[in-house]
Amino acid sequence: MTHSKSYTLGEIASILKLKLLGDEQCVVNGLSPLKSAVSGQLSFFNNPAYINQLRECNASAVIVDEKYADACKNNVLISSAPYVSFAEVTVLFDKPTVRKPSVHPSAHVHESVALPESVYIGPNVVLDASVELGKNCVIGSGTFLGEGVKLGNDCLIHSNVSIYHDVSIGNNAIIHSGSVVGADGFGFAFDGEKSVKIHQLGSVLIGNDVEIGSCSTIDRGTLENTIIGNGVKIDNQVQIGHNCAIGDHSIICGCTGISGSVTIGRYCVMGGASGTVGHITITDKVQVSAMSLVSESITEAGTYSSGTWTMKTSQWKRNNIRFQQLDSIAKRVKQLEKMNNKS
Amino acid sequence: MTHSKSYTLGEIASILKLKLLGDEQCVVNGLSPLKSAVSGQLSFFNNPAYINQLRECNASAVIVDEKYADACKNNVLISSAPYVSFAEVTVLFDKPTVRKPSVHPSAHVHESVALPESVYIGPNVVLDASVELGKNCVIGSGTFLGEGVKLGNDCLIHSNVSIYHDVSIGNNAIIHSGSVVGADGFGFAFDGEKSVKIHQLGSVLIGNDVEIGSCSTIDRGTLENTIIGNGVKIDNQVQIGHNCAIGDHSIICGCTGISGSVTIGRYCVMGGASGTVGHITITDKVQVSAMSLVSESITEAGTYSSGTWTMKTSQWKRNNIRFQQLDSIAKRVKQLEKMNNKS
Amino acid sequence: MTHSKSYTLGEIASILKLKLLGDEQCVVNGLSPLKSAVSGQLSFFNNPAYINQLRECNASAVIVDEKYADACKNNVLISSAPYVSFAEVTVLFDKPTVRKPSVHPSAHVHESVALPESVYIGPNVVLDASVELGKNCVIGSGTFLGEGVKLGNDCLIHSNVSIYHDVSIGNNAIIHSGSVVGADGFGFAFDGEKSVKIHQLGSVLIGNDVEIGSCSTIDRGTLENTIIGNGVKIDNQVQIGHNCAIGDHSIICGCTGISGSVTIGRYCVMGGASGTVGHITITDKVQVSAMSLVSESITEAGTYSSGTWTMKTSQWKRNNIRFQQLDSIAKRVKQLEKMNNKS
Repeated sequence: MTHSKSYTLGEIASILKLKLLGDEQCVVNGLSPLKSAVSGQLSFFNNPAYINQLRECNASAVIVDEKYADACKNNVLISSAPYVSFAEVTVLFDKPTVRKPSVHPSAHVHESVALPESVYIGPNVVLDASVELGKNCVIGSGTFLGEGVKLGNDCLIHSNVSIYHDVSIGNNAIIHSGSVVGADGFGFAFDGEKSVKIHQLGSVLIGNDVEIGSCSTIDRGTLENTIIGNGVKIDNQVQIGHNCAIGDHSIICGCTGISGSVTIGRYCVMGGASGTVGHITITDKVQVSAMSLVSESITEAGTYSSGTWTMKTSQWKRNNIRFQQLDSIAKRVKQLEKMNNKS
Repeated sequence: MTHSKSYTLGEIASILKLKLLGDEQCVVNGLSPLKSAVSGQLSFFNNPAYINQLRECNASAVIVDEKYADACKNNVLISSAPYVSFAEVTVLFDKPTVRKPSVHPSAHVHESVALPESVYIGPNVVLDASVELGKNCVIGSGTFLGEGVKLGNDCLIHSNVSIYHDVSIGNNAIIHSGSVVGADGFGFAFDGEKSVKIHQLGSVLIGNDVEIGSCSTIDRGTLENTIIGNGVKIDNQVQIGHNCAIGDHSIICGCTGISGSVTIGRYCVMGGASGTVGHITITDKVQVSAMSLVSESITEAGTYSSGTWTMKTSQWKRNNIRFQQLDSIAKRVKQLEKMNNKS
Repeated sequence: MTHSKSYTLGEIASILKLKLLGDEQCVVNGLSPLKSAVSGQLSFFNNPAYINQLRECNASAVIVDEKYADACKNNVLISSAPYVSFAEVTVLFDKPTVRKPSVHPSAHVHESVALPESVYIGPNVVLDASVELGKNCVIGSGTFLGEGVKLGNDCLIHSNVSIYHDVSIGNNAIIHSGSVVGADGFGFAFDGEKSVKIHQLGSVLIGNDVEIGSCSTIDRGTLENTIIGNGVKIDNQVQIGHNCAIGDHSIICGCTGISGSVTIGRYCVMGGASGTVGHITITDKVQVSAMSLVSESITEAGTYSSGTWTMKTSQWKRNNIRFQQLDSIAKRVKQLEKMNNKS
């Protein structure tokens, strides 16, 4: 894809601190995958399985590990971590909407709020009493920050986000539209006739460098705080229940639901639409497959899955009938083994 | 249900271009299913299994295929596709909020935006720089359209929708409240310590006649665009990841999650809460059952499922224990077969 | 956790109508679980498995059933339902944002709307024609109430909620941010080439004492109304399709998807991320486990589950291969049994 910005390879090498083998003056105006890249574009090579694509790639330059540099017919930028270098180069071609520091006249800023001069507050934003923003924060239109909400420096909160009272967020947060942080956890005591609301007295504490996708929800804690560690990345439509603690640098993919009072370790990956039952602990460096339900605590790092694979529905129905008989089938196998042993 | 509008059967026959067998002057003021319809209402007959309901139906008129017309004791409107005719008649009884063309004084329209006279822009709407709207568009309160967003003609965007910069949408779109189109795709490169954000340089291109439910999210592409074809219908709480392409006229039911870089063909149906892993292709006319996970590409049209059926939990637990032993059980069966063959 | 309010035990005993064994003048300023409670805090004992935590608890007072009172070394509040009493005490320590009755000058209230003096209408709220609010309602910033929406008394609608025309809600509702009530149900008739929209002519009727979490969606009915009974509690990210009826006091946990035209009885619990296919009926007092799909009607109270347990992915793969062969394995077992019977 061609973007609206362009750089010489010399500039890119300098910004990314990479060694360039080739033409410093060559101009690139976009990024593309190996297969579709054309002249004027920069690509990256990360997966040895695609070595033939690298050999045939028409990009003006490719970010590549030193040992594959020879396979590339054009300019190369040498990186020991080409995918990370690619991530770093994307920011150069991004076209973020420019938000000059200012407070839109339609924003409702409580008289108790003292805003740094470097912030941008969009139209119809509501900042309730005692909100505190760090420098360079950008708050998109229609977003609500409740009483006592604290944001660190360089936070980007997109449009139509709702953050309830007393939520605290570190530096460099990105929160996408439609997300809700700090709504009441789902807690009720059943009195035999009806559900009595347990008011949620905790809050949500979010570390530094956290990104939260669109339409995700993180509930406030009951008696303690819900905690999101540093560097945690949360995709769209994720639900994190009250009293959870998500360890640093863990990744929660889209549509995942974490039940209440769950502790997830550091460097975990919850696959898309995965989930957990409540009140369990998952240790560090656990990866859970897509649409798997973690039904008990996991104490050993590794990859975990539940569910069954996709089949043609006719085959799946036959197997499901048998799944309903599975305990009985297992017993019959045991019986057969007994009989065979006797004979 | 009785609605606030009424029509004679003659009028309805004329509007829907159906043959009426019965009283042209008969007035109907509502629509109901066969079973609960009363005099003054119009019903439809679509499923031969309910022929007895048709025979006993008290509706003033029924939309029916010619061959079942005799089974109906009252007026009939003859249609070769009664369910489609029913769909067409619902619009006659709908009570859409009237939105006279106007721009609410509280809307924030960037000076670079030239609006057609026929549009309605609600309270607190934000239209950023270079937004382009076709004629007759209606934008509900609190909705945000980022820089460079383009909408075709006759689009209805409900309240509190967020559409990020450069998203392009065709004619006749309906987008329900709370949905977010064009937020960043979920892409990071792990550098051994932390996740480095891959800026999402693509956008979202949406064809004509697309409906998107409430609280659904469609992410912008990384290097290319995320594409939603013509006539695609997306239910509530659906997540569509970056770089996906959804073929024309496919249906995505509620709570479904489509991982990144997935291509779905034309005329597919993703059942409720279904999902896919990333980087796969699903061919045309594939139907995926509710809560099934498509874990690899599907190259043949048909119906696919995963998961197991609901059982009483006690029975389910016993079978699940056996599922954990299933590989071992299968091996034991093989062993038994060997022994039997020997003997 | 220590909160900003404090009470003497005498006050709490009086408000909750509990018998106090101990010091009336003792002041508590917070609530904590047994294990982490310190002096000055109030705790509760609900689960006999934690009797040792009760014995060692450092809280200034514990809410406890009479028969366990002796195990507690400090003050006790006697309750026949300690968990319910705990729920009732949480409200005393909650810090709700004070919303003095008022209509924010930036709110857009249609001229046809007559507001009780006791309501609070936040910034940028939009109340369309003929909206009716009961007394003491609080409407958060950016929330949209469509034409003809009716709310009972004492409703709390948080920020950025969207409620479509003609939705009716009883007394004491709480609706959290980002939720959407009354958007179009997902209904189309396929005409062989494209999906023809079935306009959704029903509405949503919600009873008294209903709580709806954040980013949840409840669709309006096609010809009849979608109905949510009294006392129903709905968590975050829940989808309830058109024409559903949810019985009184049922609980719908987070991320659950209820397909269209489903009837759920009273006192049911749908576990997190559970779901149903459409057009089924679930009787009273049914509990569905997390991430289970109810694939047919349930006529008997009890607990139901589907899916498989989490395993290490390597083990899971082996078992899944066998699951795909399960019908064949079952037949082979039957064959072995036949052979054994012969021999």
